[in-house]
Amino acid sequence: MRVSHLFTKTSKTAPADEVAKNAQLLIRAGYIYKVMAGVYAYTPLGLRVLEKIKQIVREEMNAIGGQELIMSSLQRKETWEATGRWDDKVVDVWFKSTLKDNTEIGFGWSHEEAILEMMQQFIQSYKDLPVSVYQFQTKLRNELRAKSGIMRGREFVMKDMYSLHTTAEDSDAYYEKAIEAYKRCYDRFGIGDSTFVTFASGGAFTKFSHEFQTICDAGEDILYTNEDHSVAVNEEVLDDAARELRVDKNELRPVKSAEVGNIFKFGTEKSEKMGITFTDRNGEQKPFYLNSYGIGITRVMGVIVEKLADDKGLVWPETIAPYKVYLVSIGEKGASRADELYNELMAKGVEVLYDDRDERPGAKFADSELLGIPHRITVSDRLIETQQCEYTNRKDGETALLTYEEAIAKLI
Amino acid sequence: MRVSHLFTKTSKTAPADEVAKNAQLLIRAGYIYKVMAGVYAYTPLGLRVLEKIKQIVREEMNAIGGQELIMSSLQRKETWEATGRWDDKVVDVWFKSTLKDNTEIGFGWSHEEAILEMMQQFIQSYKDLPVSVYQFQTKLRNELRAKSGIMRGREFVMKDMYSLHTTAEDSDAYYEKAIEAYKRCYDRFGIGDSTFVTFASGGAFTKFSHEFQTICDAGEDILYTNEDHSVAVNEEVLDDAARELRVDKNELRPVKSAEVGNIFKFGTEKSEKMGITFTDRNGEQKPFYLNSYGIGITRVMGVIVEKLADDKGLVWPETIAPYKVYLVSIGEKGASRADELYNELMAKGVEVLYDDRDERPGAKFADSELLGIPHRITVSDRLIETQQCEYTNRKDGETALLTYEEAIAKLI
Repeated sequence: MRVSHLFTKTSKTAPADEVAKNAQLLIRAGYIYKVMAGVYAYTPLGLRVLEKIKQIVREEMNAIGGQELIMSSLQRKETWEATGRWDDKVVDVWFKSTLKDNTEIGFGWSHEEAILEMMQQFIQSYKDLPVSVYQFQTKLRNELRAKSGIMRGREFVMKDMYSLHTTAEDSDAYYEKAIEAYKRCYDRFGIGDSTFVTFASGGAFTKFSHEFQTICDAGEDILYTNEDHSVAVNEEVLDDAARELRVDKNELRPVKSAEVGNIFKFGTEKSEKMGITFTDRNGEQKPFYLNSYGIGITRVMGVIVEKLADDKGLVWPETIAPYKVYLVSIGEKGASRADELYNELMAKGVEVLYDDRDERPGAKFADSELLGIPHRITVSDRLIETQQCEYTNRKDGETALLTYEEAIAKLI
Repeated sequence: MRVSHLFTKTSKTAPADEVAKNAQLLIRAGYIYKVMAGVYAYTPLGLRVLEKIKQIVREEMNAIGGQELIMSSLQRKETWEATGRWDDKVVDVWFKSTLKDNTEIGFGWSHEEAILEMMQQFIQSYKDLPVSVYQFQTKLRNELRAKSGIMRGREFVMKDMYSLHTTAEDSDAYYEKAIEAYKRCYDRFGIGDSTFVTFASGGAFTKFSHEFQTICDAGEDILYTNEDHSVAVNEEVLDDAARELRVDKNELRPVKSAEVGNIFKFGTEKSEKMGITFTDRNGEQKPFYLNSYGIGITRVMGVIVEKLADDKGLVWPETIAPYKVYLVSIGEKGASRADELYNELMAKGVEVLYDDRDERPGAKFADSELLGIPHRITVSDRLIETQQCEYTNRKDGETALLTYEEAIAKLI
């Protein structure tokens, strides 16, 4: 993509009411556009990051047998009444409206009940289980405040997966598989080293659930962890979890963290409340075991900005960067040679954002840094004679003079 | 994908209140699930069809320089007040709700105003134009009635594209390019031969807009066309368009049709109403020319079902079928050889739905037909000795005995 063709532009300022660093940087770099507090549009650059995050999650969920589907945003009142979660006093983030005939409807802030209601049509026998389904859904939540940019919005994209099992053992085994799949996701996002499976508060069925907490100054949570991070516990369950894990809670140190995923065992609770059962081997009706597994896709994007950005702007891990290479042309001869290099890289399948604008070099370099593209190649008049270009790494600032062949070899 | 793993099942019946053939068949085949009238979830099979339709549209929009983004569902009242379209008396399909602080918000039934408001931030000069942006958005519309299945829903996916230009000439030229791109979409969907650029009613700026109407018994429209279909006119503009095109309207015959796309020139009307301008070469503020281009993605899926399905079930064109091949195993030896063939086809990148269930052959064949997968390969005990399998074409019923090598060669 040529920067001259891209309709977004970088900006020196973000909206005055935007307090979150992730949104400020993403707006300034032209990745997102603020519609209202907690509601953002994603421009071509932002959408590319989201799609890369989704694709990583998709591959990992498929690898453990997850089947992708897409539920609706519009929700029936009756779907949520069985579990008591239609009530605004129980769930205070519903957006609701009415059909023309005054039927009340809600907008999906979660889809557990909706998916279970649907699964009822397909799950009759123990032979139909286990099953695991997931979606990437735009969730709508009427949050009182929305000041964390894309880390917590009124409209956001979430991968939510649900698995149904005949026994607690089978549910437990799949839960462990999902933990490993989640770890692979964070590794591939480039934040695996600082993201930990964390004890969090449970529910009626289990004492604890698990969150994936990543160390982050902008996080809303406090994580207690030991030196090698083999133990990680949310503040809210510190006492209980320390007892359970037989560790001295005074040896755990607090660190600010952000939740980037959560997984939960419901046991048979939901199935019983909704009256959805399967026929077991003996012909008896039994409730099934349900687990849920969430990753906020837009949230992960925001958290990664908060964790990795520096004073020059965004810093994307290569796996989720909108483009791998930022190609800068300087001068007339440089532009001509850069055109060629652009075509060569494109032909080799390298994703290149090519700054072909008639702009001063400093402005191009500043945009390259603000945009956070991992690798920069500069082709300038000055280096045409030696047939070289300048390589710069966004993350560590490493620079090198390379021949065009060396540059291509480094980038493919 | 193995049918034994797929959580959906075919069914002999659809919900009693479902009158549309497209929804009846898609529900029976397990492609969609009815949440409420006009609201459907898409199961793994249905989602695959949607994604294939989207990918074709994406490629064609990218090919004419469209830049993909994603707007929000939540809409600000102020965005729509400038054009008068917040008013329920003007637009009667709004779903609305309120934030916690009683701020009124709407749910996007269209995104023209929202996209223009955003573009205002990026378009300042004639140098920033032309630009063309599009999205695949879930639209929410509070339709009074919703009886056409996925052809007209309360929640549906639409590709909407908008192009902005400095002059009427540039707008006209791009409009023509978009018509050609749309034609390529319908060709690739497998309905190009019976889909026509049709004169439809215009607006303040142009006498006519254009729809893409496809011949369809379940369609809501009447299209007037001549023998070679070189002229196609909507009933509502028959007299005017016949005069304009200098054809005798009595030579045009009526045929039932369904709209599968519409494109529209707004001229400078929207830009003026919203007060969004650009600076021209002479430093003057000018309103820009706007065109919009829509394709209902879910609607196209429904229309294709209506057009191509037969008395045995769905019939998908190969380009949008969820899988290319339905592989049926019969008997124990057949199952063993089918396993091998499944792996061979998968290794070659062929999308196979493998009916590995312990079911009688008749049930497998019936499901294969209901699901509408273009090619069927049957590997049965009976044919193991001759090392052959049976090929059946879903559309024309062609059958043939093939060696495994011939089958693979035919399917890759």
